Amino acid sequence: MKIINGGVSTPKGFKAAGIHCGVKAAGGDKKDLALILSEVPCSAAGTFTTNKVKASPVYLSMENIADGKAQAIVCNSGNANACAPNGEAHAMTMCVETAKALGLDKEDVLVASTGVIGHEINIDAIAGGIPEAVKALSEEGGEDASYAIMTTDLVNKQVCVEIELSGKTVTIGGIAKGSGMIHPNMGTMLCFITTDADIAPEILSPMLKDCVRTTFNRISVDGDTSTNDTCIVLANGLAGNDRITEENEAYAVFKEALAFVCRTLAVKIAKDGEGATKLITCTVKGAESEEKAEKISMSVIKSPLVKTAMFGEDANWGRVLCAMGYSGEDFDPEKVTVGFSSKAGSIDVCTGGKGLEFDEEKASKVLSEEEITIDITMQEGEYEVTAWGCDLTYDYVKINGDYRT
Amino acid sequence: MKIINGGVSTPKGFKAAGIHCGVKAAGGDKKDLALILSEVPCSAAGTFTTNKVKASPVYLSMENIADGKAQAIVCNSGNANACAPNGEAHAMTMCVETAKALGLDKEDVLVASTGVIGHEINIDAIAGGIPEAVKALSEEGGEDASYAIMTTDLVNKQVCVEIELSGKTVTIGGIAKGSGMIHPNMGTMLCFITTDADIAPEILSPMLKDCVRTTFNRISVDGDTSTNDTCIVLANGLAGNDRITEENEAYAVFKEALAFVCRTLAVKIAKDGEGATKLITCTVKGAESEEKAEKISMSVIKSPLVKTAMFGEDANWGRVLCAMGYSGEDFDPEKVTVGFSSKAGSIDVCTGGKGLEFDEEKASKVLSEEEITIDITMQEGEYEVTAWGCDLTYDYVKINGDYRT
Repeated sequence: MKIINGGVSTPKGFKAAGIHCGVKAAGGDKKDLALILSEVPCSAAGTFTTNKVKASPVYLSMENIADGKAQAIVCNSGNANACAPNGEAHAMTMCVETAKALGLDKEDVLVASTGVIGHEINIDAIAGGIPEAVKALSEEGGEDASYAIMTTDLVNKQVCVEIELSGKTVTIGGIAKGSGMIHPNMGTMLCFITTDADIAPEILSPMLKDCVRTTFNRISVDGDTSTNDTCIVLANGLAGNDRITEENEAYAVFKEALAFVCRTLAVKIAKDGEGATKLITCTVKGAESEEKAEKISMSVIKSPLVKTAMFGEDANWGRVLCAMGYSGEDFDPEKVTVGFSSKAGSIDVCTGGKGLEFDEEKASKVLSEEEITIDITMQEGEYEVTAWGCDLTYDYVKINGDYRT
Repeated sequence: MKIINGGVSTPKGFKAAGIHCGVKAAGGDKKDLALILSEVPCSAAGTFTTNKVKASPVYLSMENIADGKAQAIVCNSGNANACAPNGEAHAMTMCVETAKALGLDKEDVLVASTGVIGHEINIDAIAGGIPEAVKALSEEGGEDASYAIMTTDLVNKQVCVEIELSGKTVTIGGIAKGSGMIHPNMGTMLCFITTDADIAPEILSPMLKDCVRTTFNRISVDGDTSTNDTCIVLANGLAGNDRITEENEAYAVFKEALAFVCRTLAVKIAKDGEGATKLITCTVKGAESEEKAEKISMSVIKSPLVKTAMFGEDANWGRVLCAMGYSGEDFDPEKVTVGFSSKAGSIDVCTGGKGLEFDEEKASKVLSEEEITIDITMQEGEYEVTAWGCDLTYDYVKINGDYRT
């Protein structure tokens, strides 16, 4: 697998665009409409928010992707079209207008939105913008698209990799956005992945679900699951590889690459969490089961007390042990070792469930880095899980509470 | 039921004390050792942290209370004696030294600690302080005890009520402490309740569990469950009421009063949550079941995005609906109404799962108060649950992360 520069318009036969259509009023020229198109129909798979309250475009995309086929994605930022007046009708208009402008069936267009909740979306701006976005479509448009889906993300998020399948070069590109808001709102996780791989939809769909389970579902910024979360992959087959229709070697190679793309974007989202100054990785090793390791790592990564300790660069292993303890999983604290590591080194701080005498100065140095790992070993089995999050800072409170001042 | 001034030393036959023994070094004279004594043996019941990682005194108290009898409680603040060297031995020393100084069996002494985790407790200071605390015991000592269990609580927390049972006046007093820390640490919830009621321990124990379930278990400051959480009730029978041994009318009257004491202290803890500027009450009405109403109300009260919105005094009902949606409970968003109320008035902001046009100025006025209620109606059944929490503020981050500066 080779990491290359690129994004969703890099795989063969894909074009993308990102333009300003007017949903985001502030500033006047921030991109707020993204379009991704394949020149031929694609195998398509998606995972969507588990929140009981779903945005209107989520329902529409779930319906349109049910047949395992799609050819385009249209996405606006600035308004989530969730719990909003005329939400269904406006999501449908986005879909129909895009299909019309591209000459596609409306069932082959997927729709996503992100931004403020509960306000009617400016559908005139979007409808006016769609033909413009179609005109802007290009093989270099992936980066523009990555900007057009951002809300308060500080950086755009792209990744692209190449693999070989049956002698053909296959490319996978992806863009994502994380927690952010332009008005008071919950954050939304969006991820769009394109590939020229030839793969059957009935294989692609469970593969994506499994990749999402171990990547996007193992990040947490604040524990709030949005109404709009969406991850879509489109595979147009133009790489010319032997079509993947079963779990063979090519399946394994492709799945590893897809998981890498998901993981890379997931980590970028965690690192760019609202107000975050640090990426926190929590690795649980030696667990009795994957489920247990997952619950424990997520409990640690979500703990406000662990998150504030990381912000304070404090080697507060007691909070780590405490968060493990309320994860709902059973374990023997006396078998637990906790350490912290970063590129400045690593330090064990707790073993056998009790504190170690450690060099506070060294601990401070380890924790002063921007990327910190909490290393947990449980000594009860062979399973290992990694979860990602970020610290909890003044700016999180500022962004989400104090926006009026 | 009559609310009276008082606390744990108000019921007949109880004395209490709170002194400085030296566990808390900073400042030099902050009270850090509390003692509560009944002149006769008591029916005793307790609930303890569900965290898999429990402090040493928690294990000891669970053992000593198992027979439904106890006569004294000793509690230090400043060190949680959790995950700490020689924790078991030191908890036992606290117990034995207290028993010796009071002339009791050690099995009748309950022990609690709160404060920093992972550091060896200063047992010499405590052992030295116990005789002094015994000397200080008095019928007016309840207030001192309420101060001696505080960590970074800003206010002490006491309540006392009187009821009539079989022609006798029965008094119930309680003290509690909430989330706080003097060093980086998770907060701890402690609650000690005394009463002169005559009640069988096998009745008292399930009654306490049920009262805790609908009060202390329905508050959240930051979702972190401590290693030390403890709630104990001692009933010495000196009021002379007919002993409560079954679920009769006296049982109901006493239980209502006990629940009131628990709820009052729970709300005080929520209001004094770390960094909190507002008490947030969330009431879910019209739910299909109590469990569903509880899960939904707790999901809302715990949401960082709801908590920061309340800090920002922003009528952000979308976050409320979103937190309901990821509670894990099934419901129809189109039957949901959300409103906010306070002593400045009330305002509906969402009905049928969609936003209402509302007066932003009025909403700001409602939310500018220090005590705010989020009113949710689900239109699916008869159950109602109330949960309590607080806003998420800069000071929460400061207290828990930035303590070094």
